[in-house]
Formats: sequence, structure tokens, C-alpha cells
Amino acid sequence: MKTYTYKKSVALFKRAAKVIPCGIYGHLSPAPLVPATDYPFYASRAKGARFWDVDGNEFIDYMCAYGPMVLGYNDPKVDAAAMKQLKSGNCITAPAPIMVELAEHMVDTIAIADWAFFAKNGGDVTSYALMTARAATGRKKIVLVRGGYHGVAPWAQAAGHPGVIDEDHSTIMYVEWNDFEGLERLVNEHPGEIAAFMATPYHHPTFVDSELPAVGYWSRVEALCKKNGIVLIIDDVRCGFRLDMRGSSEYFGFKPDLACYCKAIANGYPISALVGTEALKTAAAKVFYTGSYWFSAVAMAASLATLKELKRLKAPELMMARGKKLLDGMIDIARSHGYTLNVSGIPSMPSVYITDDESLMLHQDWCAECTKRGVYFTSHHNWFISTAHTDADIKKTWNVVDEAFKVVRKKYGM
Amino acid sequence: MKTYTYKKSVALFKRAAKVIPCGIYGHLSPAPLVPATDYPFYASRAKGARFWDVDGNEFIDYMCAYGPMVLGYNDPKVDAAAMKQLKSGNCITAPAPIMVELAEHMVDTIAIADWAFFAKNGGDVTSYALMTARAATGRKKIVLVRGGYHGVAPWAQAAGHPGVIDEDHSTIMYVEWNDFEGLERLVNEHPGEIAAFMATPYHHPTFVDSELPAVGYWSRVEALCKKNGIVLIIDDVRCGFRLDMRGSSEYFGFKPDLACYCKAIANGYPISALVGTEALKTAAAKVFYTGSYWFSAVAMAASLATLKELKRLKAPELMMARGKKLLDGMIDIARSHGYTLNVSGIPSMPSVYITDDESLMLHQDWCAECTKRGVYFTSHHNWFISTAHTDADIKKTWNVVDEAFKVVRKKYGM
Repeated sequence: MKTYTYKKSVALFKRAAKVIPCGIYGHLSPAPLVPATDYPFYASRAKGARFWDVDGNEFIDYMCAYGPMVLGYNDPKVDAAAMKQLKSGNCITAPAPIMVELAEHMVDTIAIADWAFFAKNGGDVTSYALMTARAATGRKKIVLVRGGYHGVAPWAQAAGHPGVIDEDHSTIMYVEWNDFEGLERLVNEHPGEIAAFMATPYHHPTFVDSELPAVGYWSRVEALCKKNGIVLIIDDVRCGFRLDMRGSSEYFGFKPDLACYCKAIANGYPISALVGTEALKTAAAKVFYTGSYWFSAVAMAASLATLKELKRLKAPELMMARGKKLLDGMIDIARSHGYTLNVSGIPSMPSVYITDDESLMLHQDWCAECTKRGVYFTSHHNWFISTAHTDADIKKTWNVVDEAFKVVRKKYGM
Repeated sequence: MKTYTYKKSVALFKRAAKVIPCGIYGHLSPAPLVPATDYPFYASRAKGARFWDVDGNEFIDYMCAYGPMVLGYNDPKVDAAAMKQLKSGNCITAPAPIMVELAEHMVDTIAIADWAFFAKNGGDVTSYALMTARAATGRKKIVLVRGGYHGVAPWAQAAGHPGVIDEDHSTIMYVEWNDFEGLERLVNEHPGEIAAFMATPYHHPTFVDSELPAVGYWSRVEALCKKNGIVLIIDDVRCGFRLDMRGSSEYFGFKPDLACYCKAIANGYPISALVGTEALKTAAAKVFYTGSYWFSAVAMAASLATLKELKRLKAPELMMARGKKLLDGMIDIARSHGYTLNVSGIPSMPSVYITDDESLMLHQDWCAECTKRGVYFTSHHNWFISTAHTDADIKKTWNVVDEAFKVVRKKYGM
């Protein structure tokens, strides 16, 4: 099996490093990947479940742009809706009627939603959720799960990160994931002071396994919050519409007060949303919150088309089934080579680790060997399945996975 | 002259109010406009310097989507560049080469820029600028100008706003605009503690006149910051490329360390940028800062095309001249009716008030009467001129302005 080289990617990255901090920053930065030169740095085009890098290499993409791609790149229905809207107008002095249609559709789709609010980043709406909770309760303190990701605002970053100061966390408290008793203790220690508890529907930190909610965890949390007037905020930015069209909280059987969306809601067109219950609508309206492009109609048209197509396809169920098939096969292949592939999280957004090497070097190498053969796997972040990943893609992936295990077995021995 | 009605806008707004907090929130919210029913709520399409509302009314648009529209709505060159990129791909697992080209072009264009960083909101990059300054200096305190606008993050909002808590301002200090001595006093009172001073190139708050920098203000501020190791950040989000292609700081003759861009950089496609000096590149790289759509290639392609077209047209000079012609004529027309029209700020981004009624009712009414006749003027926010506003538009505007003065003179007397 031929392996890829990334000559043009590397040359372009060198140019980038001169005029962009890190060359490529944030979650797309090649820095955390070891070794960096095993991955392509720049994409020249994308279609369906695939992208092509600037060296002409083709990849089955299991990162899906880290989530936004959910129906396949350049989905014709979504693009047609976006182009139709663009011809009328995008970012105008007044919003377009599509804003109302999209809000109505989200209210019809998401179980807890009585209203919707649109912005650009996931982080726009996690911050807005906290402000809404503070406006509603007149309280200041926020409880988060340690290791959870809610964007890059200073309050959401871990203490000690460059640019983050202690004052950014003066009202933030942490509990461990699944630790209901810990949360209850905090609530009792700070009566009438906690505005909100914010968490992802299940725990999906980077560099370690994902963890599902323990039996009874969410219903106990929901009851605790209700009893104590604490706003329960679900950050569904990463999971949204990959578990359940009605909200990932429905999948796990509970009802938050606010839910944050981004990523999968418009197949890559830039939009995020906060949805909430009627009880919090007035507080949400009181908070002044806006942005230059938040009323842009093209992303709203793309979002409405995406939501309709996700519903039509029963996309969460479809992605779960495809993911399960892919992963079951991969576990078997790993076993045939004497390796253990541990899959955590949910099949449409799996966290995958080879457990036979604590240094993670073998795991990282294996991900890179798959990528160099056309199956794009990152080693440190959960993967994403889209509705565009076909049975043929899965079969091709299995072949590459098999080959990559042979390569690492030769390299690392048994 | 026939006046507009907004039946369909009002009906749609009633639907919106059921499913969206405020119906329309933020800077597009009709709430601050008095009376609200004098303005259209929803745009059905836009082209050049005009938009049409859902009732079919046509407006010459002097708000330009509150800044993003700078070359005219649906500029063919910008849209063609965006569409070409969209066919290849937009939001992908790896960035597109256009990211490097755009960064290089911004570095070539903006005087102080040795590097560029891209995000979505203006507020993304004002927050990132503060974090970069803190990472670079190891200091915490930030000085802002009272009444300045830097987005909706809690640190940027005024104390006491719903959802904003005292802790959000624990490291923020304020000085009055143009008060160099006040800034110097703060610097002397907090030696080695101030990470950054952030301000707009000139002061353009809402509800009051804009104020240009006093002679010598910026050079003294620049020297004070340099002497004390304070990062000087210019928020050029609103003014950027409407004063000078090399940066609004060049227009006023000084050099900041960081400059924030959004609005006019991509003619409505969603992108923002932070640019900075080589000395701050390492600190900028250390801050973890990213978003789901920040690598999307379509807005980058639109931005590159926009910047090239702005340069070709000598857009800042063109908009300044068009604005001056428009405003000079309006001042004369006002005078012919016995009114004083006060214009502050710069001609491409003027702040306009009728000074003959302290209650502002007459001014608000006059803006609404212009709008109802097809010239969209807000009463509480600076206006924007684009390169698409023609001499014919200006003449039509003068006719409407004349008629609106007749109407308010009849209503309010002299």
C-alpha cells in the first residue's frame, strides 16, 4: 500500500509560520500530533466524506472538520439553500425572514426549546448561557466539570494557560464528571449562590477516554438543580444532532433549561445557537448580546436545510449504526493483530485508543500510519462520523487499519 | 412623496417574538428606535447600496449592515471569489491555502502587521488581544476608554448590565477619551501592572457625537505605552479600511502593537482578524484560541477579494469624498430649513445629529421620516458609507432629506 508524502503541505506551512502565529493555530494546529509530518496541513478540496490535501492525497475524513461536517462536504441540498439565500442577500442592515423560520424549526425540533438565539461560535453561546443564567438568578457562581470543553473564553480555559489570569475563574467551581455527590456538596456549601451548572451531555475530554453518564446521574442532577434554582445548561456543541435530533439530553433522558449548539447544525456554514425554556426567555432578552455577522442569512438558510435533511435521513440513528459497524470491525482487526482497541463515548463520535502502550507512541504512530494510507484519524481527540460515510468507505478503512496494524507490529514488536 | 408602511415586517416580527428573545436582538433590535414602527424589521434582498424589505420598500442603506457592507451588497468580484472557494471547500479538517495568502496580504497591507490571526467576531479578536497582552507582559490590568465599544464579552460591557457581574471588571480600569493625563496618572499609580491600553482610533460611542483624537494625543499615548511596557491595542473593528488601508492608526499618525479587524474586511462574509508586531507573535502563539469555523475558506477568499478591490478603488479616500459631499449638502439643506445638522467623526463613518432639540425626539423623527421615504438613517448610531453609494444616490438622499425636514418643521414648528 502506497503511503503519502506532504511536500506541498510542508512548504506552505513554512510560508504560513512567517505570517501567522503557530502557522496553524488552535484545534487544527499540527503541533499536538506526533510526528507532525505524518499529517497533511492544508486541504485543497473536499466532497462527501473525503478531502484532498494540497499534495493531491485523498482522505476518508473521520474528523469531519472537527464536527461541522455532518451530511458530507458540499452537500448539494445545503449548498443550494445557501446559494439561493446568497443571491437575495446575506449580512444586511435588517435580518432576513429565514431567521424566523429557522428559530421556529429549532423550537419544533429540540425538546426543551421554546426559543432560539443565533450567533457564530459555540463559545458565543456558552458565554451567553452563563450570562443568561446570571441575569435570571441574580447569582454569580458557575459549576463546571473539570476537563470539560466549552470554548476558549478565559472562564472556559484551565487556570494557568497563557493569557488566562486567576481572576477569570473567581466565580467558577469544578466538580468531577459523574460525581453527583460532589455537585450536591458544592450546592449545599454555597446556598443561593450558584447560577448554573454547565456540562456536556457526556464527558468527552481530549487525550483520554470519553465517559458516559452513570445510571441516574442526569436525573439526580436535574432534580438537584430544580430544587435549588440552579440553571442547568447543556453544552451540546460537539454532540448536538449526533445522538438525537431532539437534543442529546433526550438521549440520556433528562431536561436542561438551556442548550448550546454549533458544529453539526449547518454542515459547516458558520452559525451557533442557544435554545432555552420559556422561563428563561425574559432573562435571555435582557442580556445585551450581538455580533457583526450574527444575522447573516446564508448560514441560517444552510442550517434550516441541514436540520431538515438530518431529520429526513434519521441522521443520528444512521451515524450511530455506521459508527458501530466501523468500530466493531476495527476492534476485531486489532484483536487479530494482538492489539486491544478501546472505544469509548458514542459510535457517532467515538474516542478510540490502542491500550497496549501507555506511552501512547504506538497509538499515535498507528493513527499516523492510517492517515498516510488515506484514512484520516487523529490520535488525541474524538472522531466524528457523518451520514456521508458509506459501507464502501468502511471497508476501505478496515483494509487500511489492517495494514497499519501490520506496520506498527513490525515497528514495536509484540 | 409616498411614505412606506411595514405591514409584513410587523407580522413577521410578531411571529419572531414568540420564538426568539426580543424578536430581533442586539444592534439590529428595533427597541432603541423610536417609534419602532417607523423602520422595516426584515430585509428580503440587497444589492449595491440598497436593500428591499419584506413589504417591497426600497432603501438607500446608510448603515451598511452596521459596517460589513463596504463594496456594495453582493459585490460580483467578492461573491465570485467566495463561490469559487466554496466549490473546492469551506470548513474542512485542514485549512485551505487561501489562509496563507490572506495573512500575507494583510501583512503587506497593514503598516504594523507582521502577522495575522483569523476568527469570526470582532469580539473574538478584542478578547484575544487582551489575552495576548497578558501572556506577553505577565500583567493583568487593562485600561479602556469609558464608553468605548469592544464587543459583548462581559469584560467589554458596562458594569450593571444584565448578566454582567462585578468580577468581570476586576482588572479593568477606565479613562476618559482624549484624557492623556488621566491615562498617565493610572500608569503611574499602577507601575508594572498594566498589560494593555485598548481604544478605538477615534471615539465613536452610541447616542452622542463622535470625537476625534486631540492633536498629539496618540503620539503621547504611544510613547507612554512604549516607555512602560504596555501593549497598545487599537480596536479598528468599526473604522478599519474606512479611514486608511494601512490601518486607521496610520491616518492618525501612530503605531499600535496590535490591531483588531472585522466588519469591512470581507464585505459581509464572516471573518475577523488580529494583526500584530513581530515582538508579540510568540505571546500570540502561546494563547490557545480557536473556533469551529475559524478556518473556513470561503470567508477568507471573500476577504482577500475585498481587500484587493478596496485597494484598487482607493476605497477609504473614495468613501471619505462621497461622505463629505453627502454631508455638506445635508448641512446646507438643514440650514435652509432653519436647522443645525451636527456631523462628527469622519465622513465615511459619520455621526449625525440635529442639535435643535435636546430631547432628541425631533432628530429621531427626522431619521424615521427619511427612512420612510427610502433613505435608511438610524438616530442613535454612526452611519456608514460604502463605495457603492453613487452621486445619484446622494442626490436622491438630498431630496428625501429636504422633504423630511419639511415634515418635522410642520410637526415641531420653529
